[in-house]
Amino acid sequence: MIYLDNSATTKPYPEVLETYRKVSEQYFANPSSLHSLGGKSEALLAQSRQQASSLIGVDPKEVIFTSGGTEGNNLAIKGAAFAYRNRGKHLITTDVEHASAHNAFHQLEELGFEVTYLPVDREGRVSFQDFQEAFRKDTILVSIMHVNNEVGTIQPVNQIGDFLKQYPTTVFHVDHVQGFTKVPLSLAKSGIDLCTISGHKIHGPKGTGLLYVRQGTMLSPLFSGGGQEAGHRSGTENLPGICAMVRAMRMTREKEEEGIAHLMQLRDRLFSGLSAIQDAVIHTPREGASPHIVNVSFRGIKSEVLVHALEKKSIYVSTKSACSSKDNGASTVLLGMGIPEDEAGQAIRISMAYENTMDELATFLDVLRQTVNDLKIVMR
Amino acid sequence: MIYLDNSATTKPYPEVLETYRKVSEQYFANPSSLHSLGGKSEALLAQSRQQASSLIGVDPKEVIFTSGGTEGNNLAIKGAAFAYRNRGKHLITTDVEHASAHNAFHQLEELGFEVTYLPVDREGRVSFQDFQEAFRKDTILVSIMHVNNEVGTIQPVNQIGDFLKQYPTTVFHVDHVQGFTKVPLSLAKSGIDLCTISGHKIHGPKGTGLLYVRQGTMLSPLFSGGGQEAGHRSGTENLPGICAMVRAMRMTREKEEEGIAHLMQLRDRLFSGLSAIQDAVIHTPREGASPHIVNVSFRGIKSEVLVHALEKKSIYVSTKSACSSKDNGASTVLLGMGIPEDEAGQAIRISMAYENTMDELATFLDVLRQTVNDLKIVMR
Ligand SMILES: Cc1ncc(COP(=O)(O)O)c(C=O)c1O
Ligand SMILES: Cc1ncc(COP(=O)(O)O)c(C=O)c1O
Repeated sequence: MIYLDNSATTKPYPEVLETYRKVSEQYFANPSSLHSLGGKSEALLAQSRQQASSLIGVDPKEVIFTSGGTEGNNLAIKGAAFAYRNRGKHLITTDVEHASAHNAFHQLEELGFEVTYLPVDREGRVSFQDFQEAFRKDTILVSIMHVNNEVGTIQPVNQIGDFLKQYPTTVFHVDHVQGFTKVPLSLAKSGIDLCTISGHKIHGPKGTGLLYVRQGTMLSPLFSGGGQEAGHRSGTENLPGICAMVRAMRMTREKEEEGIAHLMQLRDRLFSGLSAIQDAVIHTPREGASPHIVNVSFRGIKSEVLVHALEKKSIYVSTKSACSSKDNGASTVLLGMGIPEDEAGQAIRISMAYENTMDELATFLDVLRQTVNDLKIVMR
Repeated sequence: MIYLDNSATTKPYPEVLETYRKVSEQYFANPSSLHSLGGKSEALLAQSRQQASSLIGVDPKEVIFTSGGTEGNNLAIKGAAFAYRNRGKHLITTDVEHASAHNAFHQLEELGFEVTYLPVDREGRVSFQDFQEAFRKDTILVSIMHVNNEVGTIQPVNQIGDFLKQYPTTVFHVDHVQGFTKVPLSLAKSGIDLCTISGHKIHGPKGTGLLYVRQGTMLSPLFSGGGQEAGHRSGTENLPGICAMVRAMRMTREKEEEGIAHLMQLRDRLFSGLSAIQDAVIHTPREGASPHIVNVSFRGIKSEVLVHALEKKSIYVSTKSACSSKDNGASTVLLGMGIPEDEAGQAIRISMAYENTMDELATFLDVLRQTVNDLKIVMR
């Protein structure tokens, strides 16, 4: 099996599952329970929070454990919009956010907020100038993804963060789900107030995630209740999931430098291999994109057809973002980039993890070339 | 160790952890991915939903997997309030709900909803008559817990459900977190539209839960996004957690009849043993309460002191609900029942699982009697 759908989800590391099991067995008590068993769980939770915070260079108080990227994005966006609604009603985001951000903004529009959706250029990137022009005195929230999940394009979040430092009353949220451990991003002093990370994209357990909440940032919670996670996210803590995710964070962080360099080599190989295939059109820009995603169309071959042809050879790639992969219709991200509809409907996303090898890519490219040829013959 | 804090959380069954591991390893792909690995995950998800639904006697389409009871309650309460806000702004709940329901209502009050909090009697029960008097034409949501998590009192949810059948435009939510597998509740044809269940209270994994959403009931989602869980709860599904929770549901359901009978015997033993201890005041009613919870005060001994004295003998009980156990101040549930503040501050909660034995209770009662005596001598 050659698994190249790592942007949809990754295989959990065995060590991650081992941590999950151990904590489930040995620390099953509720961290909020007053007795000493609860105290043991609470201490482990504090230790995990400490580790997570140091892995992303923030204060432990700024780490909120969530159930994933979708929760993180919704909590950040709706939580900030509601918390600051008396200050203003204007929000800024982009045309190419993940559905979990995009649809949160749609919900807020229905509730009376005004949203500016920044367009992207041919490479899938918003312009800093467009952002500046959209920015207003009553803009209470700006939410921009770091790395696009379909094409890999890196957004100018550092530049926007720098700009927003002058406006401390505007909250800046970054969806770092695809960028984390692929494209370095420093949070402290970045102007970023809220930042979403998801566990299952980095070989952690599904149903885990983290939201960075800069001290002083207010959120109206999605989950009210017992006041866990500094009141931002109530509910009995998923301690085994948290510890296992932090283990995955630590493991990927330790490999990060080497891993990113390796991904860059893999991507170079992909770019040259794909370019050599007739009628391939690569949508991922060569500069300013994450090294783990390559998006490419093969003229004349529908995405679905190619995905299913490859799966017969035990190679797994995707069409667009997993959660919209069963919709009909082309990717709104590619359409937003100005790519014609038919070409957008022919795109596949190849997404890699540190563990993919050069050999796998060589096999993949061979099979892909052959499959594309075969399909073209059939279609004629 | 004698663990009697099962209302706070339970130890996961080994089989549950085994399912978690297997699914994590063998079905790691994203159920939304188009390829056949995703298809395998999707099929397993559908099967789990089918099993869960048949275990609670509803349609698979009516089962929404969540991250726990707190999410279920918040999604049900805020989701329904927002979805039906154009119909009316009046909501009814009780004075003794779990914080995850109670605080959701507080948030809604801030957002312009009007909430009636029904009082409870000396046994912790709301009266059907009070409910009827509070009910109005513009009541869009009624939310009442099935079994109280601190004293075990059963609320008249069947009677209220029957009444509400005449008012199909009012949504009825029941927090069944403590009742599930302890006090039977049938959902189909009950008049209940939304019902919350939590995995970790029934030996399932933490961070898992289920919300029953009767067909036709609208919810404004807390998590918008990719549209998973029928659009009610987006986010990459926690498939290992879901399968493991459904395994726990199946295992507890299979034992349920015997388990409840056993709990009743344990409770009888507790009632007689506790009554024999001087200055014990039992707050849990003998009739109309769940068999797994007994709440009792020992005059002159503060809850915290007794909890910590017992933990030294490896016996674990709690003060009030876990998530508020570190607040100062007496239980609002007991105060709501009209119990004087000092007595409420002396209450401990003993909460049992099917696995607790008569022998454990005998030991517990011996140690408790001795501990209470020792503490009284110290305090004199
Ligand atoms: C950029 C981006 N944001 C958010 C999410 C949602 O994260 P999760 O799957 O953990 O809900 C994803 C992936 O699904 C993503 O790629
Ligand atoms: C009655 C009741 N409702 C809701 C909850 C919240 O469930 P969870 O801990 O899964 O968030 C609990 C327990 O904490 C409870 O006892």
